[in-house]
Amino acid sequence: MAALSLMPKEYKFFDLFNKEAENVYLASRYFNELVTKGDFNEDTVAKMHKLEREGDIISHEISDVLNKTFITPFDREDIFLLSNNLDNVLDAIDAITKRMGLYKLTTPDNYMKQFAVVIEQSCAALVDAVKCLDNTKNRTRIREYCLEINRLENVGDQLRENAISDLFEKVKDPIVIIKWKEMYETAEGTVDSCEHAAKTIQSILVKQG
Amino acid sequence: MAALSLMPKEYKFFDLFNKEAENVYLASRYFNELVTKGDFNEDTVAKMHKLEREGDIISHEISDVLNKTFITPFDREDIFLLSNNLDNVLDAIDAITKRMGLYKLTTPDNYMKQFAVVIEQSCAALVDAVKCLDNTKNRTRIREYCLEINRLENVGDQLRENAISDLFEKVKDPIVIIKWKEMYETAEGTVDSCEHAAKTIQSILVKQG
Amino acid sequence: MAALSLMPKEYKFFDLFNKEAENVYLASRYFNELVTKGDFNEDTVAKMHKLEREGDIISHEISDVLNKTFITPFDREDIFLLSNNLDNVLDAIDAITKRMGLYKLTTPDNYMKQFAVVIEQSCAALVDAVKCLDNTKNRTRIREYCLEINRLENVGDQLRENAISDLFEKVKDPIVIIKWKEMYETAEGTVDSCEHAAKTIQSILVKQG
Repeated sequence: MAALSLMPKEYKFFDLFNKEAENVYLASRYFNELVTKGDFNEDTVAKMHKLEREGDIISHEISDVLNKTFITPFDREDIFLLSNNLDNVLDAIDAITKRMGLYKLTTPDNYMKQFAVVIEQSCAALVDAVKCLDNTKNRTRIREYCLEINRLENVGDQLRENAISDLFEKVKDPIVIIKWKEMYETAEGTVDSCEHAAKTIQSILVKQG
Repeated sequence: MAALSLMPKEYKFFDLFNKEAENVYLASRYFNELVTKGDFNEDTVAKMHKLEREGDIISHEISDVLNKTFITPFDREDIFLLSNNLDNVLDAIDAITKRMGLYKLTTPDNYMKQFAVVIEQSCAALVDAVKCLDNTKNRTRIREYCLEINRLENVGDQLRENAISDLFEKVKDPIVIIKWKEMYETAEGTVDSCEHAAKTIQSILVKQG
Repeated sequence: MAALSLMPKEYKFFDLFNKEAENVYLASRYFNELVTKGDFNEDTVAKMHKLEREGDIISHEISDVLNKTFITPFDREDIFLLSNNLDNVLDAIDAITKRMGLYKLTTPDNYMKQFAVVIEQSCAALVDAVKCLDNTKNRTRIREYCLEINRLENVGDQLRENAISDLFEKVKDPIVIIKWKEMYETAEGTVDSCEHAAKTIQSILVKQG
């Protein structure tokens, strides 16, 4: 705890990143819950959007601290980028929730249920990777979390292929195809956005040599 | 004007950025005009594309000056990135214009009219932010313009949600749905591309500490 | 060859980049072959995916060498970014191949044939640009290759416009429209991803001043 008083600003950044990442994870868990229950309505969409607004507040807080701090634990622009990346994951989860509501897709199919699990697992690994950023000794563990996110991205990719293949084979109504195709692609894009954040984390490690 | 002779290269960059941003704004204003009149035809699409070509020329000029200049007002790669970001906004406006012509959507609906206003406002704020870049004292004003662009991006987001919701409720022809859905998404993507440029500007400020 | 023993690590990076770029080119040539023959089936899709996996291995190797190397020929984060960009081109070619198979589009039309040529040419210019990175004297040649990639991106853009225009005019089945529209857009996106890699290369040159 002594270190905390020696470099409070650094700790502030790590605290805020942890807070931002945990908020993303909460959103992913809530999304999984909604998919399991098929519970996309005005109230649940609004509740998800509240999480998204909270993420925005944390992201702006990071920006503010950055503007008032001279020495940062890693490159200023990377702090900004990582915070943006985490925000993008949250935006993606919020967007897919809104669209499920808008399209009135109240009975998520088996593919969407699998996607929700992959998204939650990916966000969990992201939280873990972010938590390790405060100590260079965690290098190897961070790389493992990033590899796990990479693995989940491949799972998401295959899931989308199978889902879309099935969709075109079983559904004949083009409007239904348009809706579900977009949902599968947005779900896969959400897993992708986790990988983008992981790549920024890896790039930060790479810079530290 | 004394300063101009002291650091002509710096002024050159700011002049070119202003020129590039103003060209983007001209395109956004012209797009708004076309949407208001429902005037998408071979001639107007060609006139928009001429603006896009002019933007390319300015962007290449920035690249050229960059290759011949040793000291730059901010990081070389950020000059390159910001110029690319402005070019992306212009490309997006040109692309949506082309597509309106290609799809023969000569009677833009109320949503597209609102989008055209949001895009023009967003480009206007971008021009203002870019104009302030030549003086670190403008920091607060730049942040305000970026916040405004951020606000407009949220407006665009909501607009797209409403537009697509209405589309699926009122239109039954899947081909018409495909066309307008794409237009709304491209319009929202154009507002997004303004936000990307704003984020680069904020990242430049952040680096300056 | 003396230089090789003086700075083996540098050469290692250039070797790996050449290897990664050449693998991307192989994929683009194979894609062109498949389009010409209309030969999208389980076997050919699997063979393309094998190339994609090989690219991943090279990309991870670059990452590993980067983590073990202190002095690098250009900024660490740019090595990471360029390798990612090349990987994105490969991913795009693999994705479009998979999707052609999934949609059972075994008779590629004339537009797709033109796209396959543009993609192959673009990847060829990318290999050439990457090969030149080991010597600052190649600056002008690199810029020419990047301009060529830029030109091909414009060709791809026009190709997509023509293809989609034709599609909506000649085809009435919305499901067929959905499939081919996506293919044309993905093909154009592949040419785009070559341009992203070219922009990273140009940004590296720009940094070197």
